[in-house]
Amino acid sequence: MSAFLAAADGAAVALSGFHFTLVIVVAVVALLALAVAGGLVREVLSAGQGTERMQNIARAVQEGAAAYLARQFRTLVVFVVVIPLLLLLLPAPSTSVQIGRSVFFVVGALFSALTGFMGMWLAVRGNLRVAAAAKDQGEKAALRIAFRTGGVAGMFTVGLGLLGAAIVVLVYKGDAPNVLEGFGFGAALLAMFMRVGGGIFTKAADVGADLVGKVEQGIPEDDPRNAATIADNVGDNVGDCAGMAADLFESYAVTLVASLILGKAAFGTEGLVFPLLVPMIGVLTAIIGIFAVRTRSGDRSGMAAINRGFFISAVISAILVAVAAFAYLPSSFAELSGVSEEIRALTADPRLIALGAVLIGLVLASLIQLLTGYFTETNRRPVREIGESALTGPATVILSGVAVGLESAVYSALLIGAAVYGAFLLGFGNVTVALFAVALAGTGLLTTVGVIVSMDTFGPVSDNAQGIAEMSGDVDGEGAQVLTSLDAVGNTTKAITKGIAIATAVLAATALFGSFRTAVETELAAATQGVKDVLGSFASFSLSVDAPNVLVGLVIGASVVFLFSGLAINAVGRAAGRVVIEVRDQFRNKPGIMDGTEKPDYGRVVDICTRDSLRELATPGLLAVLTPIAVGFALGYAPLGAYLAGAIAAGTLMAVFLANSGGAWDNAKKLVEDGHHGGKGSEAHAATVIGDTVGDPFKDTAGPAINPLIKVMNLVALLIAPAVVAYADNFVIRTVVTAIAVVIVVAAIVVSKRRSSGIIPDSGDAGEVKRASETVAR
Amino acid sequence: MSAFLAAADGAAVALSGFHFTLVIVVAVVALLALAVAGGLVREVLSAGQGTERMQNIARAVQEGAAAYLARQFRTLVVFVVVIPLLLLLLPAPSTSVQIGRSVFFVVGALFSALTGFMGMWLAVRGNLRVAAAAKDQGEKAALRIAFRTGGVAGMFTVGLGLLGAAIVVLVYKGDAPNVLEGFGFGAALLAMFMRVGGGIFTKAADVGADLVGKVEQGIPEDDPRNAATIADNVGDNVGDCAGMAADLFESYAVTLVASLILGKAAFGTEGLVFPLLVPMIGVLTAIIGIFAVRTRSGDRSGMAAINRGFFISAVISAILVAVAAFAYLPSSFAELSGVSEEIRALTADPRLIALGAVLIGLVLASLIQLLTGYFTETNRRPVREIGESALTGPATVILSGVAVGLESAVYSALLIGAAVYGAFLLGFGNVTVALFAVALAGTGLLTTVGVIVSMDTFGPVSDNAQGIAEMSGDVDGEGAQVLTSLDAVGNTTKAITKGIAIATAVLAATALFGSFRTAVETELAAATQGVKDVLGSFASFSLSVDAPNVLVGLVIGASVVFLFSGLAINAVGRAAGRVVIEVRDQFRNKPGIMDGTEKPDYGRVVDICTRDSLRELATPGLLAVLTPIAVGFALGYAPLGAYLAGAIAAGTLMAVFLANSGGAWDNAKKLVEDGHHGGKGSEAHAATVIGDTVGDPFKDTAGPAINPLIKVMNLVALLIAPAVVAYADNFVIRTVVTAIAVVIVVAAIVVSKRRSSGIIPDSGDAGEVKRASETVAR
Repeated sequence: MSAFLAAADGAAVALSGFHFTLVIVVAVVALLALAVAGGLVREVLSAGQGTERMQNIARAVQEGAAAYLARQFRTLVVFVVVIPLLLLLLPAPSTSVQIGRSVFFVVGALFSALTGFMGMWLAVRGNLRVAAAAKDQGEKAALRIAFRTGGVAGMFTVGLGLLGAAIVVLVYKGDAPNVLEGFGFGAALLAMFMRVGGGIFTKAADVGADLVGKVEQGIPEDDPRNAATIADNVGDNVGDCAGMAADLFESYAVTLVASLILGKAAFGTEGLVFPLLVPMIGVLTAIIGIFAVRTRSGDRSGMAAINRGFFISAVISAILVAVAAFAYLPSSFAELSGVSEEIRALTADPRLIALGAVLIGLVLASLIQLLTGYFTETNRRPVREIGESALTGPATVILSGVAVGLESAVYSALLIGAAVYGAFLLGFGNVTVALFAVALAGTGLLTTVGVIVSMDTFGPVSDNAQGIAEMSGDVDGEGAQVLTSLDAVGNTTKAITKGIAIATAVLAATALFGSFRTAVETELAAATQGVKDVLGSFASFSLSVDAPNVLVGLVIGASVVFLFSGLAINAVGRAAGRVVIEVRDQFRNKPGIMDGTEKPDYGRVVDICTRDSLRELATPGLLAVLTPIAVGFALGYAPLGAYLAGAIAAGTLMAVFLANSGGAWDNAKKLVEDGHHGGKGSEAHAATVIGDTVGDPFKDTAGPAINPLIKVMNLVALLIAPAVVAYADNFVIRTVVTAIAVVIVVAAIVVSKRRSSGIIPDSGDAGEVKRASETVAR
Repeated sequence: MSAFLAAADGAAVALSGFHFTLVIVVAVVALLALAVAGGLVREVLSAGQGTERMQNIARAVQEGAAAYLARQFRTLVVFVVVIPLLLLLLPAPSTSVQIGRSVFFVVGALFSALTGFMGMWLAVRGNLRVAAAAKDQGEKAALRIAFRTGGVAGMFTVGLGLLGAAIVVLVYKGDAPNVLEGFGFGAALLAMFMRVGGGIFTKAADVGADLVGKVEQGIPEDDPRNAATIADNVGDNVGDCAGMAADLFESYAVTLVASLILGKAAFGTEGLVFPLLVPMIGVLTAIIGIFAVRTRSGDRSGMAAINRGFFISAVISAILVAVAAFAYLPSSFAELSGVSEEIRALTADPRLIALGAVLIGLVLASLIQLLTGYFTETNRRPVREIGESALTGPATVILSGVAVGLESAVYSALLIGAAVYGAFLLGFGNVTVALFAVALAGTGLLTTVGVIVSMDTFGPVSDNAQGIAEMSGDVDGEGAQVLTSLDAVGNTTKAITKGIAIATAVLAATALFGSFRTAVETELAAATQGVKDVLGSFASFSLSVDAPNVLVGLVIGASVVFLFSGLAINAVGRAAGRVVIEVRDQFRNKPGIMDGTEKPDYGRVVDICTRDSLRELATPGLLAVLTPIAVGFALGYAPLGAYLAGAIAAGTLMAVFLANSGGAWDNAKKLVEDGHHGGKGSEAHAATVIGDTVGDPFKDTAGPAINPLIKVMNLVALLIAPAVVAYADNFVIRTVVTAIAVVIVVAAIVVSKRRSSGIIPDSGDAGEVKRASETVAR
């Protein structure tokens, strides 16, 4: 570990001449990505916009989505103001770093917000044009517009991520790692809030709309008479577009942060540049990939075109990374500048290590794509079996979905574990190099992010296009068929994105452990008198899990993932309950809605979803930020480290479990709707609808939010580590900080419990509810 | 850690004179417990047996249960023969220890089997007498017989556990810890098989009987025309009685093993005796507790009487343990015999440490009882909210149950974590003493096991009594009411037992970490040339989770818990599917069944459940035994240690999640059946029935089996640790062992997948199934 300490002095790394120029090139490529995004925006906006009715509906969705994001950003402003100030209280190597960290926290948060905003801004415009293209031009044009709408989010994600990291490296050079912690933290925190808030919004609206519309009133999905339909469509955008884009931006930023921190320690100056070159290549190949997505004659579905785009960009990335490694990196560790003697003495070839690590990331991305596809696609065994279990009712659907989710989580976790272990072996026994290899595998995974985000945004855009078509009633026949087929493709791409996102989380978090250790050890060394642990013993720093206090930290870390998931699922239930009540009231108070003489008040439901989701995100948000603080100050830095490990292990499994069981249920429903086991309207269909409803908050609220959760907790731990060590002997400060953190978290949980929970109808509605549940059961 | 090494030499501990006599006293008390069990058997058997019809039904259940256990034991004989031979291959301090370990493996397995067998043997006889007493004498007598039937299992659990441990200590003295590993492993392995096999049996029969009987044919539960009813009742006994008793016996044995291993290192000779005194006191107070359970006028339910028994025995235990600590232990560490200099130098009072640790265990047991009660009792908020969510259908029931389960798991885990941390603080900075305190907290928990097992067995006995009453049609009016109320009490006691069982698992496993470290370090020290790690580096032994390879071990450990749960849930689905097909065939081929002119063939269903559950238990069993071997040999001993930590963290959360969500769903159903939200037959009732069916394999198959799973994996790791270290440099052996383990596990998973999975009807039955699911939905 002394390698870290040796390289901890910023001045030791010189970033000049050739290296500096290269980083400039990286920044230029990042700007190029933004320019491409601009071009895609123009292209999408210039497409036909369909009938006036379609445009009116799209406008309502646009307004609702914009209103939500505006309110969310206003709510989050407090964090963007307060946290940078708090960060100033934490120790840093120098004042300029301390200020830079706070400044770049704000930049990270703004970039994250901007990525989400832009992805959503175009999505709510692209969906209209996709619907119009399906109506007037057919599948080829519709797919193209949908995918290019997604491309904007993709380009913003990689462009802003790369730009931010490059600027930090250019300005702070050797001190960049410390400043990058702030950048990553800002990005991750905002993304977590957008994921949780958007996830609650989208599922509250979805579940609420279905319970009253489909179930109680017996009107189809997306029927304009349902006051919640616009909110449902808004939800797709704020959850699946804005939330997801911010989430992947955050994954991108944090992985870059981890690889730059570790790159500096392992590879010196070259280590600060190479991790930027890999995603730069990714940007270039993503541009190729996005333009390569066009259906050819002979493609069975849109998925074939998308897969082609993905694999083309992956293969080109691999080749270019090999070129970059051999052109830029020296052939021996002795030739690296600014690294410790220990690393200098290694006999391995740094070019092969770097290339190998990136390839591991690329292979991992491809395997996750295949594995997720296996567990969630309609024509594969797991989903088929869930479909079959629908013949014996909803209980067996739930059980088989849970079993599929649990199993698939294990295979994903083992795959990610194998990638970490493979990268670790590339360290050839040196932990610093091993951790850098893990981080580089993460950047390898990132080269595909541009295409991945495009693929993912594709999902809600197609979904919304179908919604607009349905509500307007202006698209039918072949056009409607095109949109249905695009929607199914979107389901698969969404599941894959989640798998990739959690893999980046694990790689980044594993790599960040190295930074956590450095932070603790630097502080321990700085303390002149031997710093004692919590109990005045175990003075040496060890995260060894056989010590009971460390094991307790581990268990708490795993617990937080469970609690966070439980809270998110509960929050959806509560918010959906209020949507149900509002929509019912509208049907009762405006009897003209059903025969079309009165218009429902869409805005009120959007408003309820907005207010509730923003209120509900406070508890999980506080949990994520404050629990590591409480564990660190109450139990010490070793349990805090184990806490992170527990969160990573449980988080990986839980995130994949929730995402895949939800995805599998969704597609089992589609399978039945395609005519299997009795088809639409059969008992089997009712059973799979129940499975799908259970899966909704699993896969779109709780599951995806675990990804930013893990990174927020890691970065909080990293930032407070020096303070935890410095105050290890100060019982008063430790107690006060712990007490404040615990009191706030407990109060937040108690307050959220106090709100009526579950979908509880107001007392006068018993008959109505009964009717509702009869219809569900039927 | 040198303390361990210093005490590792058996000769250093002298067990003579007073100490020896005390252990003899312990053995005598153990025999006393068995004698009490004998007395209870006589008392139960002498009670009235009701009508002849009731006796006939009871006989069928008795025969089915006996046949199952006989076949299960025959199946497991291979393990009891092969594993002792394999154990002989593993290194040990001396030949006598090596042989003793194998011999006591067999003894542990036999005791575990015997406990399960006896608990079940009397349960299938007690249930008849409980039904008869309810019919003829009323609640007081029925409760008394039911609880004393449970008392036999309780007395066998503590009697055999204590007897086995005392004999090992008497015979092997200082070498007892090594031999005890074998004893604990035998007990845990057999218990795991009984838990998994019994769990699959009981839920396959239960779900299968309900799907055809209640749902398709519209006949009540326990109707004699249903060919699966006898199997359902047999299942209660082989799963909830035999499986649970073996499980708690194993918890008892392994906790004793852990505390004796650590006791010797921390407290020397006294440390080998004191951990026996605590459960000896528990035996005495359990006897008092069992006889204290009798309803008084003024008790609102049988639960009040049972709680009184529990708390009386807990309070008396606390007082007697204080007496024992002050009478037996010296007031300073310097006066302990056979401990290292390091420990001798400690200034704390060993009596207070020991007493404090035991009290932590007792307090933990009480708090878990309260917490589990809160989350699963019908009149508390969580279950009420699940009941309310039934108004919006099955999906919201599932979601709120999942959220309740996730949350309650967190609170239980934090409670257990707090107990571990509290015990850890009692080590005053010495890890060996801290680990011993954790183990002693486990023995504190154990003092309540006698009463706990009695409480738990009470559940299935009452359930079966109700079944016999229903099937015979000979008990009605007040008698039937008495049995229903006893059954509800049984549901609560079962949930509490699971909470206590998982707590003992965590405490024992945490404590066993110390032994794992000793085993590795002893071997490392023994190797004359510096033993290298897997990669020829990280030569010092560290379980530090910031090393990527260690983190990968951690993730794999957590994964196994998820995979094991998924496999168990799937196995229930498969076995239930075959029960459905058989029962349907019988109705079709014997048309006289419905009008009572033909008798269904109960034996065939019992046979199917027996065969299937035994076949299905192979995969999870192999997974538990072979995965630690694969991880140890493939990745090394540090990842193996982290693997255990990952399994503990994920296992704790998953076990409580599954047990409590299942328990809460079950009682939400009871809540609705009590007349809330529309009562029996309403839509809300249908929704909660679905929740309950989902919860069945959660709470009775997957959840409780995680407890022995954790301990089996811990003990396997402990036993192979020396071999893993010894062969660390032998690439061939490592590869071969890993390959064998991985191939067997993968093959087992693939084979179990090949079997038709899910409840798939044979093709001709589509109409029938449709009718079935219509009825379910209604």
